[in-house]
Amino acid sequence: MKGFAFAGIYAGIKKNGIKDLGLILCEKPATAAAVFTRNQVRAAPVILGQQMIQKGVCQAVLANSGNANCFTGEQGIEDARRTIRIVADTFGIPRDLVMVSSTGVIGAPLPMEKFETGIPQLKTQIHTGTLADFAAAILTTDLSTKIVEMTADMDTDQGRRTITMKGVAKGSGMIRPDMATMLAYVITDAHISVSDLKQALTSACDKTFNRITVDGDTSTNDTLLCLAGGTSNAHITDDASRAVFQDLLEKVCLDLATQIVRDGEGATKLVQITVKGAATKQDAFKAAEAIAHSNLVKTAVYGEDPNWGRITAAAGRSGARVDPDRMDLFFDTVALVLQGKWQGKKAEKQAAEIMKASEISMTLDLNLGDHTDQFLFCDFSENYVKINADYRS
Amino acid sequence: MKGFAFAGIYAGIKKNGIKDLGLILCEKPATAAAVFTRNQVRAAPVILGQQMIQKGVCQAVLANSGNANCFTGEQGIEDARRTIRIVADTFGIPRDLVMVSSTGVIGAPLPMEKFETGIPQLKTQIHTGTLADFAAAILTTDLSTKIVEMTADMDTDQGRRTITMKGVAKGSGMIRPDMATMLAYVITDAHISVSDLKQALTSACDKTFNRITVDGDTSTNDTLLCLAGGTSNAHITDDASRAVFQDLLEKVCLDLATQIVRDGEGATKLVQITVKGAATKQDAFKAAEAIAHSNLVKTAVYGEDPNWGRITAAAGRSGARVDPDRMDLFFDTVALVLQGKWQGKKAEKQAAEIMKASEISMTLDLNLGDHTDQFLFCDFSENYVKINADYRS
Repeated sequence: MKGFAFAGIYAGIKKNGIKDLGLILCEKPATAAAVFTRNQVRAAPVILGQQMIQKGVCQAVLANSGNANCFTGEQGIEDARRTIRIVADTFGIPRDLVMVSSTGVIGAPLPMEKFETGIPQLKTQIHTGTLADFAAAILTTDLSTKIVEMTADMDTDQGRRTITMKGVAKGSGMIRPDMATMLAYVITDAHISVSDLKQALTSACDKTFNRITVDGDTSTNDTLLCLAGGTSNAHITDDASRAVFQDLLEKVCLDLATQIVRDGEGATKLVQITVKGAATKQDAFKAAEAIAHSNLVKTAVYGEDPNWGRITAAAGRSGARVDPDRMDLFFDTVALVLQGKWQGKKAEKQAAEIMKASEISMTLDLNLGDHTDQFLFCDFSENYVKINADYRS
Repeated sequence: MKGFAFAGIYAGIKKNGIKDLGLILCEKPATAAAVFTRNQVRAAPVILGQQMIQKGVCQAVLANSGNANCFTGEQGIEDARRTIRIVADTFGIPRDLVMVSSTGVIGAPLPMEKFETGIPQLKTQIHTGTLADFAAAILTTDLSTKIVEMTADMDTDQGRRTITMKGVAKGSGMIRPDMATMLAYVITDAHISVSDLKQALTSACDKTFNRITVDGDTSTNDTLLCLAGGTSNAHITDDASRAVFQDLLEKVCLDLATQIVRDGEGATKLVQITVKGAATKQDAFKAAEAIAHSNLVKTAVYGEDPNWGRITAAAGRSGARVDPDRMDLFFDTVALVLQGKWQGKKAEKQAAEIMKASEISMTLDLNLGDHTDQFLFCDFSENYVKINADYRS
């Protein structure tokens, strides 16, 4: 895709020799929109990012792993500003077009000397680096890089046009939907207005990143940024092209969100819970969220146990209106509970078979209305505990 | 304590030969109050208990472990009614003075034949059985019985009087405060009106059982019952005696609640989090609850890591108003964060030392007001996952 360049190197911020500093550089200033964490404890780069994104334009994104630059007070803000200056000076672009992101340990000061030597190194790589280099540089406890590329065609007055969109994300712990979850960047060659981009991104985020959970904790550094370079001749100007763009953006975000959950800390299984038949939209959300967050449900999934008691009990405590005697529960297409009644040993055995897969879909029908919502979550293994008991040591 | 008799036997409801059926029998009908789960998925014995407790009088409590009689539909209600009839007939007391409780696996039908043979066995033991027998019979994944006994003196017009109060509880998983958590029974020889007892119990429950968490899931069977036999000459009739009774009841409930958290599934440490300086009462509750429920905080505690970033981040996402730059955080009396600033390596080392203890107290001062709240929680170990991945197998 024309108009974007990438780099990702080891700058020495992490201790393990694995890439920890990355850059996305746009040839020309790109139209930009972003969504950030709603946690009131916000990292310094998030605070600065929220200000800089107001103008709707961005040319460079510097992201580091190994240090979240969060809860670092005035010094953290100063440090983030200094990294912005170094990027701007090194690449010859205006300071107010640089966004920075950080992810890693909370509370430690940013090791500025690593940025001073690292950013010039990024420059030497910027003509040969790939999105995969950048994707690797932003990982923390992630086991794999998370990249997606999709295209969509649209008909315009000038003929058929193709939009390309690439996405990259990191995240595997401290994952709970309350805005964009974790670091995620989407770049596209589409030509789109700031207001259209903002609206499309907020909507896509709500349907994808805000519907996933690994462990129920909301990060202090969550950022989802979309850069539209406008290098293609695909101009988003009418409702039809907006719909194509929105659809493509949602697919890209959903793909990244799914990759995050699949790579959840200690996760062995990916689960989609659909709650349907809820009396209200909010009820569908609440019930799905409670099930997706339940440690008892998540450990049962890990144990490959179709423990419908825990699933229905989680819905029961969610605050959503439920009637136990009207609930249906399906594992894939197997009905284990119908109208509140357990469907017997044969159904249980079939459901247990389904639980052995690495991807599982569950549907809880409350049979009280027409509203539906979905969550993606992962199971909960001993490894999650190990990873998080030892994280700082 | 006069007026109460106990029994606890193995009736064959569990598979492992460990006690599973217990009875508390009052010599005369006792004044009674109870608090139940707020989960909308409620076990059959809870549904019946909520009806029978309306009269404020109870003479016998039958409790079984190994089967929760929950999500068992109309059959579950029928079964619970039949156990009530068997108790009433066996012990010669009115049916409407019998309460039943069940705890264990959700969704399986109650094995009625075990109750038909078990309840007569309880009768043979009722003159020799102890509260410890009953306490043992209600355990599920608990590692230890939970019993407390306390007394309080009060001055009355008739002279100095002593109230005795005993409590017994079970619970170690599916523990999240949203009403009385788990099965807990308090018996006393005090003489008290139903309305005074109700009020005292609701208030005590809110301050104790509703301020603990093991895993954030609310049970479908939670029950807290208090029986006042009136066999002592301590009559609760004025504000002074009400205060003595309330204080004693709170202490007993807090002791039981603490025992439940200490025996939390897989738990190795007991933590008290105090949030002070909150702008509102609700803010103090929200911040304390979010910290107590955070899997990341709980795994850090397991790893003996004073991970203040996770604690402050949990407060930040709790919905409570917080200002990161004003937060103080103490581990016992060691200040690790003051006005949002990390207090350096020496303080970190002292805090890490404190984390090695089996009981830890943390205080987060938001410095935004005068409101305070507290939660008790336990850490999160690989064993929690093991226990809950294998529970039904």
